[in-house]
Amino acid sequence: TQQYRITLLPGDGIGPEIIAIATQSLKTVGAQLDLTFEFQEALIGGAAIEATGNPLPEETLQTCRDSDAVLLAAIGGYKWDSLPRNLRPETGLLGLRAGLELFANLRPAQILPQLIDASSLKRELVEGVDIMVVRELTGGAYFGQPKGIFETETGVKRGVNTIAYTEPEIDRIGRVAFETAQKRGGRLCSVDKANVLEVSQLWRDRISALAEDYPDVELSHLYVDNAAMQLVRAPKQFDTIVTSNLFGDILSDIAAMLTGSIGMLPSASLGASGPGVFEPVHGSAPDIAGQDLANPLAQVLSAAMMLRYGLNQPTAADRLEQAVLGVLEQGYRTGDIQSPGTTLVGCKEMGDALMQQL
Amino acid sequence: TQQYRITLLPGDGIGPEIIAIATQSLKTVGAQLDLTFEFQEALIGGAAIEATGNPLPEETLQTCRDSDAVLLAAIGGYKWDSLPRNLRPETGLLGLRAGLELFANLRPAQILPQLIDASSLKRELVEGVDIMVVRELTGGAYFGQPKGIFETETGVKRGVNTIAYTEPEIDRIGRVAFETAQKRGGRLCSVDKANVLEVSQLWRDRISALAEDYPDVELSHLYVDNAAMQLVRAPKQFDTIVTSNLFGDILSDIAAMLTGSIGMLPSASLGASGPGVFEPVHGSAPDIAGQDLANPLAQVLSAAMMLRYGLNQPTAADRLEQAVLGVLEQGYRTGDIQSPGTTLVGCKEMGDALMQQL
Ligand SMILES: CC(C)[C@H](C(=O)O)[C@@H](O)C(=O)O
Ligand SMILES: CC(C)[C@H](C(=O)O)[C@@H](O)C(=O)O
Repeated sequence: TQQYRITLLPGDGIGPEIIAIATQSLKTVGAQLDLTFEFQEALIGGAAIEATGNPLPEETLQTCRDSDAVLLAAIGGYKWDSLPRNLRPETGLLGLRAGLELFANLRPAQILPQLIDASSLKRELVEGVDIMVVRELTGGAYFGQPKGIFETETGVKRGVNTIAYTEPEIDRIGRVAFETAQKRGGRLCSVDKANVLEVSQLWRDRISALAEDYPDVELSHLYVDNAAMQLVRAPKQFDTIVTSNLFGDILSDIAAMLTGSIGMLPSASLGASGPGVFEPVHGSAPDIAGQDLANPLAQVLSAAMMLRYGLNQPTAADRLEQAVLGVLEQGYRTGDIQSPGTTLVGCKEMGDALMQQL
Repeated sequence: TQQYRITLLPGDGIGPEIIAIATQSLKTVGAQLDLTFEFQEALIGGAAIEATGNPLPEETLQTCRDSDAVLLAAIGGYKWDSLPRNLRPETGLLGLRAGLELFANLRPAQILPQLIDASSLKRELVEGVDIMVVRELTGGAYFGQPKGIFETETGVKRGVNTIAYTEPEIDRIGRVAFETAQKRGGRLCSVDKANVLEVSQLWRDRISALAEDYPDVELSHLYVDNAAMQLVRAPKQFDTIVTSNLFGDILSDIAAMLTGSIGMLPSASLGASGPGVFEPVHGSAPDIAGQDLANPLAQVLSAAMMLRYGLNQPTAADRLEQAVLGVLEQGYRTGDIQSPGTTLVGCKEMGDALMQQL
């Protein structure tokens, strides 16, 4: 029997409700495949601020480091929005990414046939869309120095952030992207703004150089403004996309929205070694928290990504993913993905249906 | 009789063909309304590189400065893509923006009923969409210092760009945006990434402070990732959007693409005083250049924006815009906006139809 230590970070809002379903699914599939999960819970985001005054207590980071993988739900809420920056939930999330050196963020956006009508795009344009955005997660504008709000000589304030990448930083995310493309459709589109930004020029040069090591991958380049347009115009042209932190934030959300159901989308954040963090793309939805209304499926699919990318247990991952498709096929829907002719269920009922499937 | 000096910058690719139609339209409408245009042509982009080795010769900048408004077509082409950065067509465009201090870029995205089926979004979601993106154009990541590719102590290269805004830079674009919103639907959405970037925090603080001077405008804020999603999900929620240079590049292109016909979209770039630059959103389309296939309507609508925002001649602007709607109503279409049941025409024929309308 294979044993795994999993850190659970329920975070805020609907987090605790949806992570409970994911934990239950993991236990069920684990029992079937002789995998044992030892779960330990830790605080992050608003919940951590309330308890400790810090959105990412050192103890949480240590617990994560001591585990095989981290399952995160969601952070944030109106309550903490006006706190100073270093005390905000988001700062905890950024600290987790930096602290675990999670430089590679995988964000799949796949149209599920059962939910295709939820897309704002015409059916024929999104049918079969299956995009993986590989976003750099520990560099670029999010972490570049100098940053801050400074007073200039003339007494006015100047806000500054720095977009910066070194060659090794580009290479390591580039390699993850090429390898991801190899395992998918074999096409990689690198997105930058090399016609304006020097940092993008370096990005493009390095990605182009790496391509020599991956002759089986077809590489293309797009400027970020054009990439955003092309995602909206004809998303089927994309297979794997690789881009920097800030562009990836935007493009992965566009790709997610094409599916029309961001309540269904998981993500994985990986480092070179050490535990990865797996979390849904959606937020903490404080408005529906604690009412048994949340959609737990993105959290379950995040657990599947954990099994696949974090623990190398593809069979278990497949089972969770099949179960999710199964409940959709049966017609179960939470409020966010409801459509005529389907059966509206709450978070717990959705969990029960999943366990049935499993 | 009112006399205007207009600098024409045909640039590259289809530029000369489409600017010819716009010039013709201006003459026609000018004759009707007793406006005289004195046109002077100057070089920019690839055309300028070929002739002078410089994408923005000093003479061009001077000619522009000495005129009442500048009508630009489009720049760029594969031919110049591999030149060093300081010799690229884009560098000429950025130099023009900086040289004329064109800090305010207005990019309307309006769904035309005649072309609604060209949108990749479902009809009911885009019907009536009418968005104005006000993009800051001379600051932020495009111009911030330091920038470049530097060697670090360990001998690896590091690409660097700086996103920077001072309070006065934010205030002046903010005021343009509030005033634009006042003349439109009265709603302004400011887009930033204040949960991560300090420069965005300053942006949000200043825009919020300015709101006090515009009690008739309803101000909201969105993070850029969410704004991109919302544009794709439900674009009708937007009236006027204000944002920084890099975010504006991306968001204005998304908004443009929602219309499904970026061949139809004009833009205006304005400074505090001095001439503005008016140009279509689309590129130079080198693949169809010189074949009488280009769509001149965005260029004509750019001339209309020039009349409205640059020369304060709203009646003349209305006439050009009505003429464009008129030819569409008659069913004339260039290849890029063709649909079943319409009449395919070339660039010149489209021009002839326009003159008929006028
Ligand atoms: C919450 C925020 C800091 C975060 C980001 O910008 O990375 C989120 O938008 C995301 O994409 O994970
Ligand atoms: C050509 C390029 C430099 C330019 C920009 O990025 O501003 C273009 O994309 C635009 O939006 O006008």
